[in-house]
Amino acid sequence: MKTICALSTPAGTSAIAMIRVSGNDSFSIVGKLFSPSKLGHKEIQPRCTYFGDIIDTQHQVIDKVIVTFYCAPHSYTGEDTVEISCHGSMYIVQKITELLVENGCFFADAGAFTQRAFLNGKIDLIQAEAIMDVINSHSEASHKLAMEQMRGGFSKEIEQLRGALINFSSLIELELDFSEEDVEFADRTQLTVLLQQVLSRIQELKSSFTLGNVLKNGIPIAIIGKPNVGKSTLLNVLLNEDRAIVSPLPGTTRDTIEETINIDGMTFRFIDTAGLRYSNETLENMGIERTYEAINRAMAVIYVFDITVTIATEVEKMLNDFRTHIEDPDKKFIVVANKIDEISEMPSHFNTLVNLDTIFISAKRKENIALITDSLSKHFKEKTQNVSAVTSNLRHFEALSKSQQALETVQTGLTEKLPSDLVAIDLRQALYHLGSITGQVTNQDILENIFGRFCIGK
Amino acid sequence: MKTICALSTPAGTSAIAMIRVSGNDSFSIVGKLFSPSKLGHKEIQPRCTYFGDIIDTQHQVIDKVIVTFYCAPHSYTGEDTVEISCHGSMYIVQKITELLVENGCFFADAGAFTQRAFLNGKIDLIQAEAIMDVINSHSEASHKLAMEQMRGGFSKEIEQLRGALINFSSLIELELDFSEEDVEFADRTQLTVLLQQVLSRIQELKSSFTLGNVLKNGIPIAIIGKPNVGKSTLLNVLLNEDRAIVSPLPGTTRDTIEETINIDGMTFRFIDTAGLRYSNETLENMGIERTYEAINRAMAVIYVFDITVTIATEVEKMLNDFRTHIEDPDKKFIVVANKIDEISEMPSHFNTLVNLDTIFISAKRKENIALITDSLSKHFKEKTQNVSAVTSNLRHFEALSKSQQALETVQTGLTEKLPSDLVAIDLRQALYHLGSITGQVTNQDILENIFGRFCIGK
Repeated sequence: MKTICALSTPAGTSAIAMIRVSGNDSFSIVGKLFSPSKLGHKEIQPRCTYFGDIIDTQHQVIDKVIVTFYCAPHSYTGEDTVEISCHGSMYIVQKITELLVENGCFFADAGAFTQRAFLNGKIDLIQAEAIMDVINSHSEASHKLAMEQMRGGFSKEIEQLRGALINFSSLIELELDFSEEDVEFADRTQLTVLLQQVLSRIQELKSSFTLGNVLKNGIPIAIIGKPNVGKSTLLNVLLNEDRAIVSPLPGTTRDTIEETINIDGMTFRFIDTAGLRYSNETLENMGIERTYEAINRAMAVIYVFDITVTIATEVEKMLNDFRTHIEDPDKKFIVVANKIDEISEMPSHFNTLVNLDTIFISAKRKENIALITDSLSKHFKEKTQNVSAVTSNLRHFEALSKSQQALETVQTGLTEKLPSDLVAIDLRQALYHLGSITGQVTNQDILENIFGRFCIGK
Repeated sequence: MKTICALSTPAGTSAIAMIRVSGNDSFSIVGKLFSPSKLGHKEIQPRCTYFGDIIDTQHQVIDKVIVTFYCAPHSYTGEDTVEISCHGSMYIVQKITELLVENGCFFADAGAFTQRAFLNGKIDLIQAEAIMDVINSHSEASHKLAMEQMRGGFSKEIEQLRGALINFSSLIELELDFSEEDVEFADRTQLTVLLQQVLSRIQELKSSFTLGNVLKNGIPIAIIGKPNVGKSTLLNVLLNEDRAIVSPLPGTTRDTIEETINIDGMTFRFIDTAGLRYSNETLENMGIERTYEAINRAMAVIYVFDITVTIATEVEKMLNDFRTHIEDPDKKFIVVANKIDEISEMPSHFNTLVNLDTIFISAKRKENIALITDSLSKHFKEKTQNVSAVTSNLRHFEALSKSQQALETVQTGLTEKLPSDLVAIDLRQALYHLGSITGQVTNQDILENIFGRFCIGK
């Protein structure tokens, strides 16, 4: 494999930048540029840092740097690897990279280092994908999920399912060798039981995808209600509350993540329902269908009404309507009575509203807003607490689905007592799809698709 | 001193980010967060890298990182220092920084690490300032200059001047102790000779400031000529030629450096002469004064004329006018005859133009443009070749000037045979100003002024 190099820290002017070199020739290439200080007659040790000069072909010192050598297989990529920490000047980074290329390195493609780690068996595909998820995480929940996958939690789960099936698969493959003799090495009853177990676990993993996906990308929330009940004010208050807790770390910006809030480490994302939110359309003229669409897309719905003009029976009726029309009966509804600042005392239908778990707020005066966020937080904390391996990646979800289909065909085959060779084909299919998740079976297209999404230098 | 921490790589999503911790408590603070893998019973060695987990107070793994410990004084700051290389996720960087602060670290101010390196005697002020220049360098020339200063070339020069004077200064101070006895320990003749030498060297260093400043910030170039001779086209061609050689390094952008070109490692900056360039104003109605102003501000002048309508005597006259009116008689003039694509044969006055070293181009067809850039490059390469220590910093220039003034007063004092105590005062002044350059004498204001311009994490 070619020896590759890339800047692994963000481009820009800073105290320090780090260039990574990986491949068989990395030691000899870096050796041509790097002159360590104070080494004397000692040999360079792996995993130790050496201070010295990067020198160009005209014997000019390009920079004073710190260099670390990692011997294969004890490196990120599993190859001989060198890390060069230089001053964070783009001129210097460019110059050093040019020198590396002049001496035989190639510019690394996106994800090239992680792809090598995968190809050298340091990590599986799930872990490789999780590394990029770790880097892109913006909340505690998405970070935790990605870390768990990077550390191999999900991989182990998939391997267990695959391991259980492989045993049966090889027994059935063996039967094919003795096909003339009509023997059964694989106990069909045991296989049926195992299939049920595996299918049930695959279904669980598939079901966890909704959760995994929203933990990764944000839990979708819809704010609904009639015009002028204060939806827009409430949204702004929710967004501003969040802005106030943004970290003081220099350089962090949240400008690109619009209309999301982090509550207790989870990201909530407000559904852009176009005309639905903050407009003056009435529920009627915007079409009740679009309201239902928004509700169906959301994992939690904040239903806001104006306490000064709304009677309890109307609220009850609306909630019942929602519940009877939507797909998911367990969807979280938060009922919010706004504008308590405009009433002197609670209305007569107060008790009915309390029974509906109504939260009484003043969006204008920012009163009781925390009750809404606490309610959201509590609900989703409970949902995520007892989930171990969670599917958060569409590729995994699709492979699980294909595996599921194949296993269901195996199940049918067993029921209908189909010959071993047909059962074997479907079982192989199921194993193939499970194996594609961790990368035990893979091809160039899959790899390019996965690693092409990485950043350069990773 | 407080233990400080900061992100030392640029903010942003990337493969790797590096957080630096420095101060007495850095080992113990990092020790609370970091759990090395595979350490066993071995002790952590300085300057070796350790792979392991950063763990928060809830025992959650925040990231898998590589940590390096540097024991005082063998570190950048001269203090115990820890470098944590984590995944380049802003969430992780924020989380680790928060954990460090929770455990007793303080957020580092801009330049805090380098300021400590200075206060701990690892580097002098010239070198500290040069480090920031190294980081900000965009061309080979500015980089080379900053590297030379960072490596102590200029410091040594200043120290030599100071060292020579210190000897005399102490002899004169000694005379003050014996002032009743009217003795002279310091040989006045030798001192006079030395003063001449030192003053002459200071003058050289001061003179190098123009060069140092332009190498750092770009050599100012004026393109002048009558309207419609093709100045604007030429400028665009020059700028585009440069854009084409911009490095393929991902992430490098030159958008912020407008209207500069890099030729052979030197940055040339086109003077924004407002109405002068690319407008339809004639030389006459814009005022010849403004043309001269532009010429005086430039280190090289590209004088463009239209070969289809201009006769040689007009060019000669214009050049003579320029030379008689401007301050610097050695200013580089490049005479450019444009629009050779519009003539079928060279005009009759061709020989006269050749004698003026005229470069014949077609800006429209991009012909012979390299002759202009070669001419610029050759001229300034020669100018910069034999310069050893160059002043590139306004603070140094001003201190040199003050030192010069004080030494001239000493000179006068010697000529007028003033008493030792008066001579001693001026000599002390001169030494003070020389010492302020390297930072041997300094105060909090100077330090804040210098290090406040640094980036965070350096």
